[in-house]
Amino acid sequence: MSGKGGFTLPGEAGQEKLTLELCKKWGADCIRDSDGTQLSDEILKSGVPIYSTICLVRSVNEWAKRNMDKLQRNFLITAPELATGESLEIQPLKGFFDGQFTLCPEDEPKEYWQVFDRTESSEIPKENWEYDAESKTVLIRNTVFGHMYTVSFLATRIWEEISMYNHITNDWGDREHLMAVEPRYPEAQEALLSFLKKWLDEHPATSVVRFTSLFYNFCWIWGSEKRRRTIFSDWGSYDFTANPVSLREFEQEYGYKMTAEDFVNGGLYRPTHTPPCQKQLDWMEFTGRFVREFGKKCVDLVHSYGKKAYVFYDDSWIGIEPWSGHFGEFGFDGLIKCVFNAFEARLCAGVKEVPVHELRLHPYLFPTGLTGEPTFAEGGHPERDAKRYWTCVRRALMRVKVDRIGLGGYLHLVEPFKEFQDEIEKTADEFRMLKSLHEAGAPWETGIRIGVLHSWGKKRTWNCSGHMHEHPELYLNHLYESLAGMPFSLSALSLSDVAESGVPDDIDVIINTGRAGDAWSGGDMWQSPKLQSAINAFVVRGGALLGVGEPSAVTSGANRFALSGILGVDEERGQGICLEKYDFEKTDGHFITKGMKEAPAFGNAVAGVYALDGKTKVLFSNGRDVSLSAREFGNGRSVYLCGYTHSSENARLLYMALLWLAKKDGSLPLYLPDDCAVECAYFPVAKSLVAINNSGEHKRASIQTESGGLTVEIAPYGISVTDC
Amino acid sequence: MSGKGGFTLPGEAGQEKLTLELCKKWGADCIRDSDGTQLSDEILKSGVPIYSTICLVRSVNEWAKRNMDKLQRNFLITAPELATGESLEIQPLKGFFDGQFTLCPEDEPKEYWQVFDRTESSEIPKENWEYDAESKTVLIRNTVFGHMYTVSFLATRIWEEISMYNHITNDWGDREHLMAVEPRYPEAQEALLSFLKKWLDEHPATSVVRFTSLFYNFCWIWGSEKRRRTIFSDWGSYDFTANPVSLREFEQEYGYKMTAEDFVNGGLYRPTHTPPCQKQLDWMEFTGRFVREFGKKCVDLVHSYGKKAYVFYDDSWIGIEPWSGHFGEFGFDGLIKCVFNAFEARLCAGVKEVPVHELRLHPYLFPTGLTGEPTFAEGGHPERDAKRYWTCVRRALMRVKVDRIGLGGYLHLVEPFKEFQDEIEKTADEFRMLKSLHEAGAPWETGIRIGVLHSWGKKRTWNCSGHMHEHPELYLNHLYESLAGMPFSLSALSLSDVAESGVPDDIDVIINTGRAGDAWSGGDMWQSPKLQSAINAFVVRGGALLGVGEPSAVTSGANRFALSGILGVDEERGQGICLEKYDFEKTDGHFITKGMKEAPAFGNAVAGVYALDGKTKVLFSNGRDVSLSAREFGNGRSVYLCGYTHSSENARLLYMALLWLAKKDGSLPLYLPDDCAVECAYFPVAKSLVAINNSGEHKRASIQTESGGLTVEIAPYGISVTDC
Repeated sequence: MSGKGGFTLPGEAGQEKLTLELCKKWGADCIRDSDGTQLSDEILKSGVPIYSTICLVRSVNEWAKRNMDKLQRNFLITAPELATGESLEIQPLKGFFDGQFTLCPEDEPKEYWQVFDRTESSEIPKENWEYDAESKTVLIRNTVFGHMYTVSFLATRIWEEISMYNHITNDWGDREHLMAVEPRYPEAQEALLSFLKKWLDEHPATSVVRFTSLFYNFCWIWGSEKRRRTIFSDWGSYDFTANPVSLREFEQEYGYKMTAEDFVNGGLYRPTHTPPCQKQLDWMEFTGRFVREFGKKCVDLVHSYGKKAYVFYDDSWIGIEPWSGHFGEFGFDGLIKCVFNAFEARLCAGVKEVPVHELRLHPYLFPTGLTGEPTFAEGGHPERDAKRYWTCVRRALMRVKVDRIGLGGYLHLVEPFKEFQDEIEKTADEFRMLKSLHEAGAPWETGIRIGVLHSWGKKRTWNCSGHMHEHPELYLNHLYESLAGMPFSLSALSLSDVAESGVPDDIDVIINTGRAGDAWSGGDMWQSPKLQSAINAFVVRGGALLGVGEPSAVTSGANRFALSGILGVDEERGQGICLEKYDFEKTDGHFITKGMKEAPAFGNAVAGVYALDGKTKVLFSNGRDVSLSAREFGNGRSVYLCGYTHSSENARLLYMALLWLAKKDGSLPLYLPDDCAVECAYFPVAKSLVAINNSGEHKRASIQTESGGLTVEIAPYGISVTDC
Repeated sequence: MSGKGGFTLPGEAGQEKLTLELCKKWGADCIRDSDGTQLSDEILKSGVPIYSTICLVRSVNEWAKRNMDKLQRNFLITAPELATGESLEIQPLKGFFDGQFTLCPEDEPKEYWQVFDRTESSEIPKENWEYDAESKTVLIRNTVFGHMYTVSFLATRIWEEISMYNHITNDWGDREHLMAVEPRYPEAQEALLSFLKKWLDEHPATSVVRFTSLFYNFCWIWGSEKRRRTIFSDWGSYDFTANPVSLREFEQEYGYKMTAEDFVNGGLYRPTHTPPCQKQLDWMEFTGRFVREFGKKCVDLVHSYGKKAYVFYDDSWIGIEPWSGHFGEFGFDGLIKCVFNAFEARLCAGVKEVPVHELRLHPYLFPTGLTGEPTFAEGGHPERDAKRYWTCVRRALMRVKVDRIGLGGYLHLVEPFKEFQDEIEKTADEFRMLKSLHEAGAPWETGIRIGVLHSWGKKRTWNCSGHMHEHPELYLNHLYESLAGMPFSLSALSLSDVAESGVPDDIDVIINTGRAGDAWSGGDMWQSPKLQSAINAFVVRGGALLGVGEPSAVTSGANRFALSGILGVDEERGQGICLEKYDFEKTDGHFITKGMKEAPAFGNAVAGVYALDGKTKVLFSNGRDVSLSAREFGNGRSVYLCGYTHSSENARLLYMALLWLAKKDGSLPLYLPDDCAVECAYFPVAKSLVAINNSGEHKRASIQTESGGLTVEIAPYGISVTDC
């Protein structure tokens, strides 16, 4: 083995030759199995360290079948139904996928279920409804004509979601449905630990056990209708952790009871994208403690076998929360993140309490991609996909060190795709080069410290919830994506912390962005005078604020944006149409927009934003609404952007805005190539200037360095290293 | 004089020949003066009845100059200012037009003024601020660093707004500024009545006294900056009725005090477009009573001279409220409305408590139009303008009787525009023909009774506030415009009445439309269970609901639209992005959209509306968001439209939707021309079918009547009458 290192290869039995060949070509120092693949003795004994995946909660299916009352549970809510008589019958499971959900016959419905009059927003007393187990129907009595009713209930899940998805997508026919057991039950813990022990005994060749991930999947509720296959999905919701044991333990510990309504929230559930309430935060903390406690037992067991334990930062990651500040308690040896984008690389790399950070690159070695398009199949161009994803991710690796990369899937699929094999070789080499530069010493930064201000604070640093392609409408995902490749330091601040203690001293620019009422903008938390005055004081004393979309938007009061005074803009939503708007004149040649010929293009722009007065410099507008503006406020500065989507052009605009906000507009920006498709990082210890070309065209770009200007030439999607 | 009648001509001294010539050509039976014109003896003695305009409150300028403490007043609020120390100085008048506003030296500021910490949303105790009359500055003590402060104060207005606007727009130089006196002062009343008496004595030739209008102008606050000349303007706001006398009387009568904040509302003021609060409604009632009481004295005085009293339904109309149910108390003989649009003609014609309804047509006989474009000047085409406005207004006159039409302005300008003279001759003839048909007997109607449901109810029937061109973004103005020419009956219902007593029995279709939180949609009043269940019950029992834009939108809860259950659609605003949306299939060939090839085009469409489930029939979408949908709900029906702007095509769509909603989709629609640019009205007593062509193209249209089909041919913008 060449041992170039830092690369995890998915091996496959029967593909020994290819496995070892690509191992060499890509410099892999570790071979993994994948769902549905086995490693042969030849591979296991090749001398390359072995890395095995395990998803504990779905691994004891025989035990699960014997203990159906100890499967994982969650609350569901029916669609509202109208009463047109004195009673109403509602079938709780109606509309939900019966492959996923059932009712537990052992349950006493009145312990957890709730019936609501949604028109009155009031719970129906338990004596006014009955559940009939025979017909699986709730009968509500004394209903009011014209009112809408719902039933919330504790369902049992009979199919673990990831295996359900794979099974259905890949048409696995009568292959057994795997079920997720609830590890809060001591009996389940015992079954899981003895399974793990047995597994460890049986896998002496394994060096690294990769957990996929721990116990609770993100919330993924399926429906019965083909035209609404998914009812709810959120990578950050804790719905699947509710069950009789946890509910009872929580009540004992916190002194109050979590109800169905606390989870189903009238039908909205509790997505990461809405501001969390205190009960929800309590529940997350409570769950996190359990996951860490039992997770540590599993990790310790792995360690007792002299093996390392890595964890996958996707799928069943609920309760793990690598950014919670408690992640170190697990004792994991590595954190693995599947990445499409640069911000996901930062999300992984930024977790300090683990020695190894590994990225699982796309495309996966599967015949088809995310939307069913061919990848490793007739018509597929996996080498192009690989280049595209790597170009995204590489931006982040210019700024921070990542220890490993790797692939997943079925290696035999790669055989006919030689260009892909070459592409990954190049990728691996670029990765190792960047890693070695970081190891020599950190790259140059602007020194500008950004605080992203939202409801979640640190817990949701470098991501909102899920991948970019799932919610491309979110401004913050796009901002994170742009910032992931820029020389700024970034931390996330919570609105409540700032309200309590002000803006921390180590922040130069606050970013607040989102849609009105969402967790990123912050919702009515902005009505807090302490929060408002903290930001006012921060900016007036010389700080800066970047508002994007509907920053600090509140639902009542004269202003839509609580920070309109600083931003110098506000949003017209219909209540102020009799207040005539200031007839602004566009400001040309501003530091932020110098050289820009066209208004920035955002797919998600907010309409109806207007300038308060002439002190707001409108840099771009659509002729009527403000697209981009800048303003001085006391000793500080603010910029407003009506939307944001990541692109090279927009990222450059954002960069210039941040320089201006931080008052670094006095001199020529350093290490900023004059072509926005090119980005660079200077590593002072190694005296190396690395430049990347994010475009498919050959680029020649001038760069100002501390020791003068230089010009680089870079091939399409290429990388160049210059000593300087 | 030919005496064809029903036409009011603006006469002009020195233009006797033209006046009498056009009087004949247009069939005028009445000659009026205009602002700035005089009628000569020759005209006065021509035998044609004379009609004179008078604006009382600005007519006693000498008295006003001697009684500057008895001018009209109003509350204003400063722009919020930031405190960065322990005190803050704010100049109340800063930012306001000094030609319009001043401070009254006799005031004791602490009686009415208020200082607010806007960050805390709390009033500053009066001992913590002082007003210095010398520097005209308020000093606020013990301010909090980072908080924003405002001063609200009672200003004096030193220039009556309509004369101010005319003066400035027409550059009248040093012509005297007219001031509006406050008629609540007994001394002012005395001055006004004795002026009126003298005026009546001096105008024996006048048959009709036209009041312009009574005492209080709509709210029109001007700013000091050229780029924001108007700060606030609303045709329906009562701000200009606040003054020491009214405030004191109100407190005595209602037992509570109106504060500055009740008017300035944190800077939003109280536009008609936001849901009124109870204090505001109390104040309007209180003011209305005074206006009626003193107004009646003026009308009685006019009557005592054997003259008639008409009132202009624009300008100083505040407190008159022709739709309040109390209008009859004035004893007016005529109501005159300046009209651009059909809905304004219905607004005038629908007032039952007055015998004569007169429309003032556009264009006014001025050199330039609304936006400064030439009218009766080089490059102007007043005949085209006249045709365009008349085509709009005529639609309404097909449905309801109006008694008179007329023009305003300077007649001499008309002389060189012969085509205009001919156009008006045609207009006057068409008007008289339609009027005579109505006099014979009412036209056929569909029998469908529409209830427009909003915060104001009856008071704001057939209009929101102001003209279409001022707020073209309002769905309801456009709906009113379309409906004004259709054979439906229409009334406006208030949300609170419906919450209290349900939907009245004589309503078939409820329309609710607006933007979230505005007075037309209704705002958080929709959280009322009684209101929701009233509409649910109405529809489920067989009624119908048309929702447009953001109907029944509320700020909290799982649904954005409180009536989403009926409409089968809801709006995604960012809180439900994890709830996957039903993947609807477009429904073709529905009764409403039969024959429509393209999606309706609305300039004001709401984005993000989705179908709840498959029971919602999506008739048009933009590929993702619902544009138009229909649904059955119990025995009733609903339709949702994502926006609405008036056009022939959209009006036809609306017509079909209303027929479907009212279950009149079983047979071929009667009296509905097969070309949407053509509309018709059947007058059964006269046995006349009138058809109008709203387009500039020659039209041939088939119409189904009770006695079979027929075809009409109509010239561009023409009208045809068929006996049948």
